[in-house]
Amino acid sequence: MLVNKIGEKNKMKYKKVYLDNSATTIMHPEVIKEMQKYFYKIYGNPSSLHNFGKNAKIAIEKAREEVAVLLNANPSEIFFTGSGTESNNIAIFGIVNNVCGKQIHVITSKIEHHSVLNSIKHIEKCGHEVTYLDVDKHGIISVEDLKKNIKNNTLLVSIMHANNEVGSLQSIDKIAIEIKKINNKREQKIYLHSDSVQTAGKIPIDVKRIGVDLLSLSAHKFNGPKGVGVLYIKNGTHISPMFFGGHHEKGIRPGTENVPAIVGLAKAFKIANNNLQKDKIYISHLREKLKTGIINTISEVTINGDEKTTIYNILNVSFNHVEGEALLLMLDMKGIAVSTGSACASETISPSHVLSAMQIDPVVIHGTIRFSFGHYNTNKDIDYVLGVLHTIVEKLRSMSPTFNKKSRNI
Amino acid sequence: MLVNKIGEKNKMKYKKVYLDNSATTIMHPEVIKEMQKYFYKIYGNPSSLHNFGKNAKIAIEKAREEVAVLLNANPSEIFFTGSGTESNNIAIFGIVNNVCGKQIHVITSKIEHHSVLNSIKHIEKCGHEVTYLDVDKHGIISVEDLKKNIKNNTLLVSIMHANNEVGSLQSIDKIAIEIKKINNKREQKIYLHSDSVQTAGKIPIDVKRIGVDLLSLSAHKFNGPKGVGVLYIKNGTHISPMFFGGHHEKGIRPGTENVPAIVGLAKAFKIANNNLQKDKIYISHLREKLKTGIINTISEVTINGDEKTTIYNILNVSFNHVEGEALLLMLDMKGIAVSTGSACASETISPSHVLSAMQIDPVVIHGTIRFSFGHYNTNKDIDYVLGVLHTIVEKLRSMSPTFNKKSRNI
Repeated sequence: MLVNKIGEKNKMKYKKVYLDNSATTIMHPEVIKEMQKYFYKIYGNPSSLHNFGKNAKIAIEKAREEVAVLLNANPSEIFFTGSGTESNNIAIFGIVNNVCGKQIHVITSKIEHHSVLNSIKHIEKCGHEVTYLDVDKHGIISVEDLKKNIKNNTLLVSIMHANNEVGSLQSIDKIAIEIKKINNKREQKIYLHSDSVQTAGKIPIDVKRIGVDLLSLSAHKFNGPKGVGVLYIKNGTHISPMFFGGHHEKGIRPGTENVPAIVGLAKAFKIANNNLQKDKIYISHLREKLKTGIINTISEVTINGDEKTTIYNILNVSFNHVEGEALLLMLDMKGIAVSTGSACASETISPSHVLSAMQIDPVVIHGTIRFSFGHYNTNKDIDYVLGVLHTIVEKLRSMSPTFNKKSRNI
Repeated sequence: MLVNKIGEKNKMKYKKVYLDNSATTIMHPEVIKEMQKYFYKIYGNPSSLHNFGKNAKIAIEKAREEVAVLLNANPSEIFFTGSGTESNNIAIFGIVNNVCGKQIHVITSKIEHHSVLNSIKHIEKCGHEVTYLDVDKHGIISVEDLKKNIKNNTLLVSIMHANNEVGSLQSIDKIAIEIKKINNKREQKIYLHSDSVQTAGKIPIDVKRIGVDLLSLSAHKFNGPKGVGVLYIKNGTHISPMFFGGHHEKGIRPGTENVPAIVGLAKAFKIANNNLQKDKIYISHLREKLKTGIINTISEVTINGDEKTTIYNILNVSFNHVEGEALLLMLDMKGIAVSTGSACASETISPSHVLSAMQIDPVVIHGTIRFSFGHYNTNKDIDYVLGVLHTIVEKLRSMSPTFNKKSRNI
């Protein structure tokens, strides 16, 4: 008893805190439950003509309808894919491959996810022209700038909804309005694609209101299963298939449909959308609590991204005189999971392309941590993080040759 | 009691019998159990640097090692994909896209799965040359014929291991020996790919002994999860990526790894390989029992495929004077799931490209049913099928204008 009391006094109890929800999320128990029966009961191939197959087909068509309702789309516009990356690739190459031989122009931003950026870089290598739009210091593109860069042969504009590292939110609806105006005056339509992997299940998405032609999302970002995504393709938009096989998903994504994952995606998307307003308030409060706590206890920190234009579940913080990776690893030793950039880029050592585009000093970039919140985070999680964070930062700074000893007392 | 006895006498008890295991399979309970903890416990993104991520990474690397051992490959040669279709596409386009601008030649067979056939047809459309090898009446290609068709610019040979409709097994090892001989004499290597989706988990696959450069398999064909496949890529074989994103699977298959599915694939592959000999004997017996039963009770039937060169889990039967689809639907009403061709082609009305290539009369093709057996089928399943099949065939034939009434008494 005495030992316990001393223990409590000297250090906080070890706790596991997952603050990397933009990388992936834990699955919702109801989603797991929903998927179960498709493992051992309704396990048929949806392409089979017998009842085992028909029941599986009914399940994916029900899921398609549910997703369509949540996006205000038509079920015929919903295509199930293997991931957000795949959705982005199918959207981009699907539009670009429509024009055989013709040189076309693509507009994107400098801060896209690598599945968009690297796809478009490949298109550039193949001889097409690409404009990579700049962002301001908050990670926001200028719609005026986008308009100015449209050329006669512009075929595709691909702009992400929320950035995965800093959470900056682009005004896709405003971009869509401008593109529509231009499209009304010309023959060659410009298609608008938005990677909405970071906003789906967090912000209501109404594809008709936003006005996109193509939109990508991924289930594992909103407590759904890994290995399944959606590509919304507006009716009338022709997509050249990227890969070939059976007739599945109208030939856009051949391969036996992943029935349990598709059902799981729909369930998770429904739960996330049902909890949307409640989660927004709750998670915004957690984010604010962590942000204020960091600012109040640690000197020389910068919050990246503007409050008004940043999604509520990402907090991107630069800690001067600290190596982000060292901070990540020391937090990990305390059971706290955070990220230095996007998980997908974690194996590269080059500084974040997002923060670089935001003109943040490379030295500052190296001390940057992304905290990303989810449905299952608690106030106690934040208390725990705040309880250990300043000590770790202080320790790391004490070893830093650039840290002015004086500033420790500011 | 009396009613029951009369019932038993007049009709067999309704039973669900799944004989469409080549389309997809029920998941093994141990596989489901194994996957569970990756839904809610080890749920991190394998690319994340913290413990949640590291544990997920450990799981996929362990799965990679397990699969490698079972295929006698090196773990660095195992790539996890989203499906067998995807594995086939990545293999074919990965090799063909290596040669920019140069016109190349591809050899395949007329009886490949649509994910191979349609990929190669796309390559042909792009201006490359393709040879589609004929098969004999048992669905077997001639290795001599293949050799004769090799040209100076042949870059890829893609031949499936077992056919998904009739089960005909190609001698991939003999093909590999011939290709190796030719490769030794020339600069431009010919790559050998084999779609082994129908043999993985049913026949021991030793990639070194077979001598392939690329080999595809899919988990849901051997009681594993849907939405995950493997592409074996022999070390030293360069593959141009088909789609783009993060560094996952060395950039060959970007997108957050589907950890539960990958773990499930490895587990299912291990179980299937452990049961291989036992299952082979057991399933061969079930197949033989059904085959003999059909021959003994129903006239004018043809067993497609030669006993010696057909995989033990597929029984392809043509019932003269019967529409296959009508037979399928009537069997379905009795709870029996079979297929008329491959599930992937079930929505097309054209006669099976496989049976057509085997020079089977189109009229006969239309009366063809594939029975495909699995680990969970029983002797009672076969008794039940035999108990209802001849009555259904007789009923359908009684409505057929082509059926000679006399032949019913043969």
